[in-house]
Amino acid sequence: MRQPLFAALAASCLAACAAKPVPEPAANARYSFWRPAPVVDAPDPAKVVQEAPAEAWRPVDPSNLLVIELKEGGRVVIELAPDFAPVHIANVRAFAKAGWWNGAAIYRVQDNYVSQWGNGDAKTELPAGVVRQPPAEYHRDLAGLQVRPLGFPDSYAPMVGHANGWPVGYDPEQGRAWLTHCYGYVGVGRDLAPDTGTGGELYAVIGHAPRHLDLNIAVIGRVVEGMALLSARPRGTEALGFYKEPTQHIAIARARLAADIPAAERPAFEAMRSDSLAFSQFVTGRANRGGDFFQRPVGGVDLCNAQVPVRKIGG
Amino acid sequence: MRQPLFAALAASCLAACAAKPVPEPAANARYSFWRPAPVVDAPDPAKVVQEAPAEAWRPVDPSNLLVIELKEGGRVVIELAPDFAPVHIANVRAFAKAGWWNGAAIYRVQDNYVSQWGNGDAKTELPAGVVRQPPAEYHRDLAGLQVRPLGFPDSYAPMVGHANGWPVGYDPEQGRAWLTHCYGYVGVGRDLAPDTGTGGELYAVIGHAPRHLDLNIAVIGRVVEGMALLSARPRGTEALGFYKEPTQHIAIARARLAADIPAAERPAFEAMRSDSLAFSQFVTGRANRGGDFFQRPVGGVDLCNAQVPVRKIGG
Repeated sequence: MRQPLFAALAASCLAACAAKPVPEPAANARYSFWRPAPVVDAPDPAKVVQEAPAEAWRPVDPSNLLVIELKEGGRVVIELAPDFAPVHIANVRAFAKAGWWNGAAIYRVQDNYVSQWGNGDAKTELPAGVVRQPPAEYHRDLAGLQVRPLGFPDSYAPMVGHANGWPVGYDPEQGRAWLTHCYGYVGVGRDLAPDTGTGGELYAVIGHAPRHLDLNIAVIGRVVEGMALLSARPRGTEALGFYKEPTQHIAIARARLAADIPAAERPAFEAMRSDSLAFSQFVTGRANRGGDFFQRPVGGVDLCNAQVPVRKIGG
Repeated sequence: MRQPLFAALAASCLAACAAKPVPEPAANARYSFWRPAPVVDAPDPAKVVQEAPAEAWRPVDPSNLLVIELKEGGRVVIELAPDFAPVHIANVRAFAKAGWWNGAAIYRVQDNYVSQWGNGDAKTELPAGVVRQPPAEYHRDLAGLQVRPLGFPDSYAPMVGHANGWPVGYDPEQGRAWLTHCYGYVGVGRDLAPDTGTGGELYAVIGHAPRHLDLNIAVIGRVVEGMALLSARPRGTEALGFYKEPTQHIAIARARLAADIPAAERPAFEAMRSDSLAFSQFVTGRANRGGDFFQRPVGGVDLCNAQVPVRKIGG
C-alpha cells in the first residue's frame, strides 16, 4: 500500500482524541500585543553568509547525507538530522545501504504542499536492519540541545529557535523540542497509525510551511541540493496530488549515503552553526531587510524564513 | 527594462534609511510567552467549507477578476483587491482593457519565491488611463475595515486577521492595515524607487510566504484558479530566477477582465466572508487539525495557512 501523508479527514475526532492529554484552553490562549522593532542598517544576510568565518560552519557527516540520483539526471541531496529521529534515520540508512530506493519513484506532487517518493507497494519485505514499527519520534527532550531563540513570536509553538543548525519549536515547560516543517524539510510518510511510517516513503515540503504537521510526523532532515527537482514538477491530478498514471512517475536511479560513495566522488556540505555570531547577524538581517530595494525593514521574521545557510564545499 | 523584484542587495543601508521614521526598538521588542491551546474535536475545515451556508459567501465582482489565458492552454484567474491598492488596480484594469499582456510572457520563476510575468521592455508607451507613477499603496487606513483577528501571534505584524475575505496585517496604534504576501498572492513588480511599478509587471508567490515584502510592495490580489500553471514550472537559471533564453518564456495569449468577457463565457467565483460564523469555524479547524490522521492538534495557525476559501461557481 502507498502511504498517503493524509487520509481523508472523514468525520470529527471522537473518543480516541478526547482521551489525549491536551492543555486546558482556558487561561493560556491569550498573548500580549507585540510590536516589531525594525532595525535600520541591519546586516545584509547574503553578505553575512559570504563573509562568515570558517568557525561559523560545521561540516555535515557523510553518513548524514542521502544522495538520490534521478534517472533523468540530476540529484537531490538530503541532510539527515539523527539527533531528532534516530530510529527513523537508522532505517533510512539501512534502506539506502540495501538499495531500497533504486528503481523507486516520485509519485506524488501536491501544489503548495509536498513531493513524495518511495517504493510504494513494489516490495513487501523490508531490508535487514529496518525497524518496521519505529516509535513516534515527533519530539525529543529539550535537555541536551543548545537552542538559540529566534526572538520573534510564532503562530504554532510556545517558542522557536535553532539548535545545532536546525530549526526547532520547543516548549520549556514540557521540556520538549521538535524539528519544524519548513520549505525543503523532509518527513516520513505514514498511514493513520503513528507507527506505520518506516522511512521508506519520504516527502519534502514544496510550499508554505505546513507547520500543522509538526509533532504529528517524524521530520528527518532537509534538502540541501536539487530542491527544484522536487518542486518544479507537474502537480498530480488525483486526490492529494498523486499522479494518475505510472508513466508520470519520476524515476529514481539510485539512492546512497554519501559515506558509501567513494570519497573522491561524494558531495560535501557544511551548515552554519546556529550558535555562531554570524548566524545571529544573519537572522537580524533576515528580519530587517535593507539595501536599495526595501523601503521599510519589518523587524521580524518567521522561523521558516530564516533558513539555516547550508553550502556545498569542495569539488 | 525588465523590472526585477529585487535589485542586488549591494551594500548596507546608509543615510537614506537612517532618515526614515521607524519605531524605537528599545521597549517593545519583547513579547510574553505564548502557549497554544489545542482544541480537541474542532471542526473539520474541509467540511466547514462544504457546508457553509450561502450567506457565508460573497460574490467576486467581474471587474475584480483578471483572466490570463496561456498560449499553451489553460488560464490563471486573479481576484483583485481594489480596497487595498486602488490606483494600481485601476492601472491593471486599464492594461487589461488595452490588451497590454496579449503576447506577454512569464519570464521569471524563482524557487520558493515568485513567478513573474509581463511585457518587459517590449513596449514603452503605456496605454491610456495608466498612471505611470502610482503612489506607494503599501498600506491603507485601518479605519473602514472590519477586521476579524486571527487570534494567534504573528512573526511580522503586531496583529493579523482577515477583512472582507482578505488576509491583513494591521497596527491598531498606527491605524494601518495591509495585504500580506501569502502563497498565491499577487504583487506589483517594481524597480528600486517605490513609484516605478505600474502594475504592468506582476508576480505571484510560489513558495513560503515572503512576508518581508509586506509594506514594501503593492499587493493587488490572489490567484483563484490555475496556480499550478505558475508554480509547476522550470526554475530560471539566471540570477533571481529569470529565464536565460527567450525560448523558455511561457507565452500569454491574452488577459482580460471577466467583466469584458461575454457573460455566458466568463468565469465566476465567490469568497468566504471573513465575518461569517463559517469562517471562524474554518480558522478553528485549521488551527486544530483532527480526524484520523493527526495525533495532536497544534492549537495555532499562521495567517498564510488559514487561506480564505474561494470557489468557482456556475458553469
